[in-house]
Amino acid sequence: MQRDGINLPNLYVGLVHYPVYNKRGNIVCTAVTNLDIHDIARCAKTFGVQVGYIINPLDSQKTLVKRIIHHWTEGAGALYNPARKQALERIQVRTTLKEVIEEISEAHHTPVKTVATDARWQRRTVSYRKMHELLCDRPQPYLLVLGTGWGLAREVLEESDYILAPIEGTFTYNHLSVRSAAAVILDRLVGNRQRGGTENGFHRNN
Amino acid sequence: MQRDGINLPNLYVGLVHYPVYNKRGNIVCTAVTNLDIHDIARCAKTFGVQVGYIINPLDSQKTLVKRIIHHWTEGAGALYNPARKQALERIQVRTTLKEVIEEISEAHHTPVKTVATDARWQRRTVSYRKMHELLCDRPQPYLLVLGTGWGLAREVLEESDYILAPIEGTFTYNHLSVRSAAAVILDRLVGNRQRGGTENGFHRNN
Repeated sequence: MQRDGINLPNLYVGLVHYPVYNKRGNIVCTAVTNLDIHDIARCAKTFGVQVGYIINPLDSQKTLVKRIIHHWTEGAGALYNPARKQALERIQVRTTLKEVIEEISEAHHTPVKTVATDARWQRRTVSYRKMHELLCDRPQPYLLVLGTGWGLAREVLEESDYILAPIEGTFTYNHLSVRSAAAVILDRLVGNRQRGGTENGFHRNN
Repeated sequence: MQRDGINLPNLYVGLVHYPVYNKRGNIVCTAVTNLDIHDIARCAKTFGVQVGYIINPLDSQKTLVKRIIHHWTEGAGALYNPARKQALERIQVRTTLKEVIEEISEAHHTPVKTVATDARWQRRTVSYRKMHELLCDRPQPYLLVLGTGWGLAREVLEESDYILAPIEGTFTYNHLSVRSAAAVILDRLVGNRQRGGTENGFHRNN
């Protein structure tokens, strides 16, 4: 995708509420967190993500998310904070990860590549630099898959095309919120660090 | 500070609720957001920040924050989620930014350098790469100052030793939550990108 002289990756984000682990290692469906929607929407708009999908199989949860989106895109929130409207407009609600994969693949007439994330090192992980290079391979679409709760179920990791390296800080502690993880991952993959003083990022053509 | 073979910067974070702007450009005191505390605590623990200060002059707000911290460090939350306990233990509540500056300076027997953040370009901004180099200049302490609401008051920016470059994404949209901004800034300044595949970060000595 190209727009305003900038080459954009065809990047999508999916926030998965099922199947994920709870703290005991059981597969559960987590409840939606309001600020997850806002923070991922604002990150999506900032980092040029095409659509941020909130993925939850429960009708009651989907209704809640749609109500929040409506408030900020068409309700009172849209007038109160137009910047938030622009961000929330990038959010869609879907029932399953499979549905999201099919939707993106159909839109691009090619299978979307899934990029799972996990706080632990997996046997096969791809570095941020490598993933950045792959994202430059437009028009191939990519779906970054984020897990809520205690992380994505093993089956999601196994079925994904790539698994990103975990975010490492200073020591071994690695319990960032999914909101923080999403921000760091998107910045590492597609943030513009040119003027900020570090490296790569997608460059303007002109 | 050196620990476990890793050279750590003497980095502190302050989340300012007053003086900050509201959407009309008036100076206000914002209300504390629960997930700001959690996300900044988890980032602080992950990225080796010494203390995360929640700065709010209102007694009712300080009491609320202390109650949240107590729940997770000594109350039922500490047993429920020990990882959260480790994170929340890094959080302190203070009345003013001045008080925080004096406290850190006294502890280190040298004036702390303040590093303000803003979503807009300022006349004097320091790049992430430059700030990373400065942070390597141990044992000099640094305080990263984050604003809630619509950003830090002009006086805080003017009185700061440094102003970090804004986080740039793909276009000009720059309305990240303070939670997302904190995560990205800490990752850019002190995140370990070695195994993650990109550059610099603080290295192990051995």
